[in-house]
Amino acid sequence: MEFGFDAKTEDYRKRLLSFMDEHVFAAEPTLATHSGWEPPAVLPELQEKARAAGLWNLFLPGEHGAGLTNLQYAPLAEITGRSPSLAPAALNCAAPDTGNMEVLAEFGSPSQQQEWLTPLLEGKIRSAFAMTEPGVASSDATNIGTRIERDGSDYVINGHKFYISGAMNPNCKIFIVMGKTDPSAARHVQQSMILVPRDTPGLQIKRGMTVFGYTDGDHGGHAEIIFDNVRVPAANLIGEEGSGFAISQARLGPGRIHHCMRLIGMAERALELMCTRALARTPFGKPLAEQGVVQDWIAESRVRIEQTRLLVLKAAWLMDTVGNKGAHTEIQAIKIAAPSTTQWIIDKAIQSYGAAGVGQDTPLPSLWAHARTLRLADGPDEVHKRSLARRELNRYRSDS
Amino acid sequence: MEFGFDAKTEDYRKRLLSFMDEHVFAAEPTLATHSGWEPPAVLPELQEKARAAGLWNLFLPGEHGAGLTNLQYAPLAEITGRSPSLAPAALNCAAPDTGNMEVLAEFGSPSQQQEWLTPLLEGKIRSAFAMTEPGVASSDATNIGTRIERDGSDYVINGHKFYISGAMNPNCKIFIVMGKTDPSAARHVQQSMILVPRDTPGLQIKRGMTVFGYTDGDHGGHAEIIFDNVRVPAANLIGEEGSGFAISQARLGPGRIHHCMRLIGMAERALELMCTRALARTPFGKPLAEQGVVQDWIAESRVRIEQTRLLVLKAAWLMDTVGNKGAHTEIQAIKIAAPSTTQWIIDKAIQSYGAAGVGQDTPLPSLWAHARTLRLADGPDEVHKRSLARRELNRYRSDS
Amino acid sequence: MEFGFDAKTEDYRKRLLSFMDEHVFAAEPTLATHSGWEPPAVLPELQEKARAAGLWNLFLPGEHGAGLTNLQYAPLAEITGRSPSLAPAALNCAAPDTGNMEVLAEFGSPSQQQEWLTPLLEGKIRSAFAMTEPGVASSDATNIGTRIERDGSDYVINGHKFYISGAMNPNCKIFIVMGKTDPSAARHVQQSMILVPRDTPGLQIKRGMTVFGYTDGDHGGHAEIIFDNVRVPAANLIGEEGSGFAISQARLGPGRIHHCMRLIGMAERALELMCTRALARTPFGKPLAEQGVVQDWIAESRVRIEQTRLLVLKAAWLMDTVGNKGAHTEIQAIKIAAPSTTQWIIDKAIQSYGAAGVGQDTPLPSLWAHARTLRLADGPDEVHKRSLARRELNRYRSDS
Amino acid sequence: MEFGFDAKTEDYRKRLLSFMDEHVFAAEPTLATHSGWEPPAVLPELQEKARAAGLWNLFLPGEHGAGLTNLQYAPLAEITGRSPSLAPAALNCAAPDTGNMEVLAEFGSPSQQQEWLTPLLEGKIRSAFAMTEPGVASSDATNIGTRIERDGSDYVINGHKFYISGAMNPNCKIFIVMGKTDPSAARHVQQSMILVPRDTPGLQIKRGMTVFGYTDGDHGGHAEIIFDNVRVPAANLIGEEGSGFAISQARLGPGRIHHCMRLIGMAERALELMCTRALARTPFGKPLAEQGVVQDWIAESRVRIEQTRLLVLKAAWLMDTVGNKGAHTEIQAIKIAAPSTTQWIIDKAIQSYGAAGVGQDTPLPSLWAHARTLRLADGPDEVHKRSLARRELNRYRSDS
Repeated sequence: MEFGFDAKTEDYRKRLLSFMDEHVFAAEPTLATHSGWEPPAVLPELQEKARAAGLWNLFLPGEHGAGLTNLQYAPLAEITGRSPSLAPAALNCAAPDTGNMEVLAEFGSPSQQQEWLTPLLEGKIRSAFAMTEPGVASSDATNIGTRIERDGSDYVINGHKFYISGAMNPNCKIFIVMGKTDPSAARHVQQSMILVPRDTPGLQIKRGMTVFGYTDGDHGGHAEIIFDNVRVPAANLIGEEGSGFAISQARLGPGRIHHCMRLIGMAERALELMCTRALARTPFGKPLAEQGVVQDWIAESRVRIEQTRLLVLKAAWLMDTVGNKGAHTEIQAIKIAAPSTTQWIIDKAIQSYGAAGVGQDTPLPSLWAHARTLRLADGPDEVHKRSLARRELNRYRSDS
Repeated sequence: MEFGFDAKTEDYRKRLLSFMDEHVFAAEPTLATHSGWEPPAVLPELQEKARAAGLWNLFLPGEHGAGLTNLQYAPLAEITGRSPSLAPAALNCAAPDTGNMEVLAEFGSPSQQQEWLTPLLEGKIRSAFAMTEPGVASSDATNIGTRIERDGSDYVINGHKFYISGAMNPNCKIFIVMGKTDPSAARHVQQSMILVPRDTPGLQIKRGMTVFGYTDGDHGGHAEIIFDNVRVPAANLIGEEGSGFAISQARLGPGRIHHCMRLIGMAERALELMCTRALARTPFGKPLAEQGVVQDWIAESRVRIEQTRLLVLKAAWLMDTVGNKGAHTEIQAIKIAAPSTTQWIIDKAIQSYGAAGVGQDTPLPSLWAHARTLRLADGPDEVHKRSLARRELNRYRSDS
Repeated sequence: MEFGFDAKTEDYRKRLLSFMDEHVFAAEPTLATHSGWEPPAVLPELQEKARAAGLWNLFLPGEHGAGLTNLQYAPLAEITGRSPSLAPAALNCAAPDTGNMEVLAEFGSPSQQQEWLTPLLEGKIRSAFAMTEPGVASSDATNIGTRIERDGSDYVINGHKFYISGAMNPNCKIFIVMGKTDPSAARHVQQSMILVPRDTPGLQIKRGMTVFGYTDGDHGGHAEIIFDNVRVPAANLIGEEGSGFAISQARLGPGRIHHCMRLIGMAERALELMCTRALARTPFGKPLAEQGVVQDWIAESRVRIEQTRLLVLKAAWLMDTVGNKGAHTEIQAIKIAAPSTTQWIIDKAIQSYGAAGVGQDTPLPSLWAHARTLRLADGPDEVHKRSLARRELNRYRSDS
Repeated sequence: MEFGFDAKTEDYRKRLLSFMDEHVFAAEPTLATHSGWEPPAVLPELQEKARAAGLWNLFLPGEHGAGLTNLQYAPLAEITGRSPSLAPAALNCAAPDTGNMEVLAEFGSPSQQQEWLTPLLEGKIRSAFAMTEPGVASSDATNIGTRIERDGSDYVINGHKFYISGAMNPNCKIFIVMGKTDPSAARHVQQSMILVPRDTPGLQIKRGMTVFGYTDGDHGGHAEIIFDNVRVPAANLIGEEGSGFAISQARLGPGRIHHCMRLIGMAERALELMCTRALARTPFGKPLAEQGVVQDWIAESRVRIEQTRLLVLKAAWLMDTVGNKGAHTEIQAIKIAAPSTTQWIIDKAIQSYGAAGVGQDTPLPSLWAHARTLRLADGPDEVHKRSLARRELNRYRSDS
């Protein structure tokens, strides 16, 4: 057992921390005047610099990416989480592209890879992952209502999706759509994934959905989308018919590590903001930093961050060493622990800012909304807790 | 001791509940397309109907208003809280006008009343209360930086305010501004309040401040305002020089009852939405309403609502029977209890909606943002807790 | 609506508060050397004084008792809760006698009343209520395993009970035993209650059960009891065969009010101890009373006590005005709210005492153990929450 | 970074787990009939077996002990925590002997080591550490009231100690007493430690202190002790005059790792008991294991255990690699996190057992009382949080 980062990680961390200090934090104020669905104007320039600094596609193992393990990439994802509206995109490590690139790299056909993976890896286009539906509890994959039906050499897609992140960005050129090719098949082989280009007839972007009042326009928003007899060539199917659920599970593991480590970075940012505020303000003749309750928040925040980070890193290590399946409990555990921990810390940071804490002059309320949403994304906490509990109980069931 | 409402209250409740069902809830969907700073287009019509139904200025005791006690008005304020973007304004019972009308009715000169109170009572104009400042901890009134200086027959105002609710509404015609007339006076007689019409030269509305991602445009937003050598006649001062802190304290008591009862209404709305959702959704083959964790949320919500409502009603009764001072502990207690209780309940309701819970298709995230803000408005929870604790401790100090 | 106590209640409160100050608190130190299962040596003397002061059988409505309503008795029960090991017994208002006397007064035959109710009312004997069983979840009454079988002019009882409070006291002369007379009957008419004198052959007191490390010897402990072919005359049955569940439900309502109001008294005692400690200790050069975290505990305690007390009082008022059934939700709500609130407050008080907080020199750890147990007695919190949630959900079910 | 145990640790774990299964759990029922202050009758036999199995003095690094690092010993301490009344003592790894042996091994003179360390290492005697005092907040070492005064070739000790764990055991032969040799010296060099044999005249064991009703007799209880002109030779002083505070700090680091890892073991035991109960009970026709709320407890317990364990292990690793000082934040963090986490889990386990959960038939209430006490031992949580917060804030202070 050994808790230090390896040399490669330390080297990347050092360079990434410099990149954040020199370029990213300095660019944050430009976000204040952002509106609409285009990416922040500063982004291309940041991407250029990240690429030059060798900080590009760090998330992707194997030949297509930087070749880092989950355990090596996790601390880097954390650092980008300190500025989640800019840093992940600047490094071409932003969701949902990361998961989509992983899917294409692992399951895509050569022609799919050439057409979509290559421009994604180069940061020339963005993508979206269309899974969540308004009418059903999407945490139960058997509920999916979208149909993908074979018709000659094509598939025809009909369905209704919402909260499709990034899809309002006009540069989001390709959708990976989850739907059912065979509703009568066994529970976990009914679903398939298929590639749908943005300009396919019948694909209608209905509106942007808000998150606690935010359009998240600088992230490409969250779209409600109608698929009305959308027709694509059969070659657009990813993998085989019925493999959709399995691919989505493969996609989840690294995605959760990334999300959770970015959450740790968000928590660190919030704690930093809480500390600097506490030192700056002196109501009633005593600095906030000397108030017992504020000290309690700061201490609790530090303790919770340390605990949660270690758990995410262990989950990453398990994924690297025993695979997704062996890391199942830990991956679920971080999905449960990281969003609520981070949400709690940001809430306290907001409270330390008074009225200013809820407005547009700090990143805190936007960070909070993001963390809150991650208690729902990929299934609400409660679904994961139930599943984890059942596995825990099974240890005693099998004994009897 | 007796826990039933009196006949007058029951009559008003019945009529108000009908008004909500017939007019207010039906009008809510029109809010979805609202933008900008004007009030909702449906509002004048609702106001007309409320006035016709005898549901007008219910908040105001005495000759100018409906003449209800705090205890009689409180359950009505609760009902309006179920639709906080429309109902309070429809009844001319919306903050900050309510507090401002109380101040003018109690402390305003006859000519101040004629010029500003009359149109406010008739719902012809709106008003704002300019107290909070960006540079200081406003919960400590001695921190106020705005100056109100006598210059001949005028006062000249210089200062910087923010989060001035309602002020972005172009129909907000008058500001009650809190500032210091004598920074060298004793701690609580340095401050004064003064009336500043919107179009006074030097009053610059700098921008709207957001609350999480909301502009709150349908409430008139929250303005950042610069007062740069703003000159008004000396007769615009409310009461005497140095009375500002005392007036603000008088203003707080009823305001907190109103806020807290509306919060109870918001909590009831959220609980209703949680129950209807729980009955409608069936993930994994079992209705949410049968899930133990959701049942736990529902039960806890009901228990917490009942407790908090009783405490607010008792505070109202104390204000009516022994006055603000005698109700001090209870008024502080409800300021501590009601926002956090309501926030907790809304959070669970959001969780029961999954992704839909954070977007624009239910009032939940907007209600949440509002409740969250009330943990900061009029001073953060922590300031009130400290004060309440000191009073509790004094009971034992004086014994010794 | 009216939150003041009536004159009769105020008079009783005044006299009871004097009795506590003059006699009860002074007698508390004698408990420290108590051991074994006999009642505290000081008790007979306290009972004598309480009776002389007209503070006797206050819990019992109607001709047999003081004739107070639930709303009038509740604030008196609160006061006795400040010293729960002495005051309730001193006033002949201690559980489980109170519930047993209610059952005998309402459902007992004249000869049952003469033999058992009369000496109980006079404080000459004690009693126990034998319902909970070790083998099953007793919160589900259909689980009861004890059998009460007719055999000629007798009933024969076989079963296994535990946590039978008060039963270790040799002066506990009579048991009301819950068992099944007809396991094949409908769900809620299988059970009956029967009177079993302590010295009946076959009734074996197996051992005292502990609560955390306490034997609760001064309360008569908690017994594990075997009923092995225990034979009593048929006339010992209370009411009719099959009425056991109904009687137990009738018994519950007032019992919960009493328990919950005593819990409020325990919480007040703990808060008082926390405040006096906070004023007395000065670690690191600053009194605990000036520490923000301790102030937060004190303020939260006061707010929670006020809320919970009001809810219990409202439940009492509802029982008096609309009966047990109409007060169902509120009775369940207080069972959920009061123990956990009180437990939280006592925990903070303990924390303020450091190591001394867990030992025998303050009543705090014993109060804590008692409050903790009340989250389990009469069914765990979770059972009550589920039931309350279902009723809440039904409001929306019936609409559809 | 690497989260697997090394081979040595794995070997020890395997052997220790066998020892627990074969000997310790089997001996637990014998504790039920334990009374008085003697150690459990089964202990000598267990010690014999542990020694034979090479599971002896595992806690002690260096020549005197097993030579394990903190990181190697920590997972073993966890395992002993599953049966804290027997396993630590069986392995001669029980507090406070462990800390006392460390002190003697590191700071004791050769003759002190010969007289006291040798029999302690052999498990022939027990020892106590007399630091806590009733009159003052012991978390502030400058408050210590006990005096150690030089008088010729002796030291004379006067003072009053309480909650001295293990001291009621007649086999506890030696006390390490903390007191002030020079109250006028600088803050942290006023204190010294001195060895006082049990039979020294003037040392009066006044009484055993309880912990939530428990005497903890099988651990040797917790004594209140008067030192009344207790005279010992000057050679009994440990180290130099004024070194007491420094030695106590050195003693704390490993002690906290041990306590916290045993707490993890206690939490695992509680979770196991909760799961087996949940599978065994079926109230209202559905196993507890299928109840959503119980599943939530189980999932939360697993997540919290994993997080806390990793933090304790990291603290152990830091102590091994950068020393106590470099591990300061983490050592404080585990002192804050582990007791409250474990307390929470045990509370839920208790709740799942109903009435049986608070009694003597499971180890749960005794485990709970122990965990609760560790939120106070070595200073209450609040003191550690304040200190940790200050260090966190200093990171930003030094920047400015």
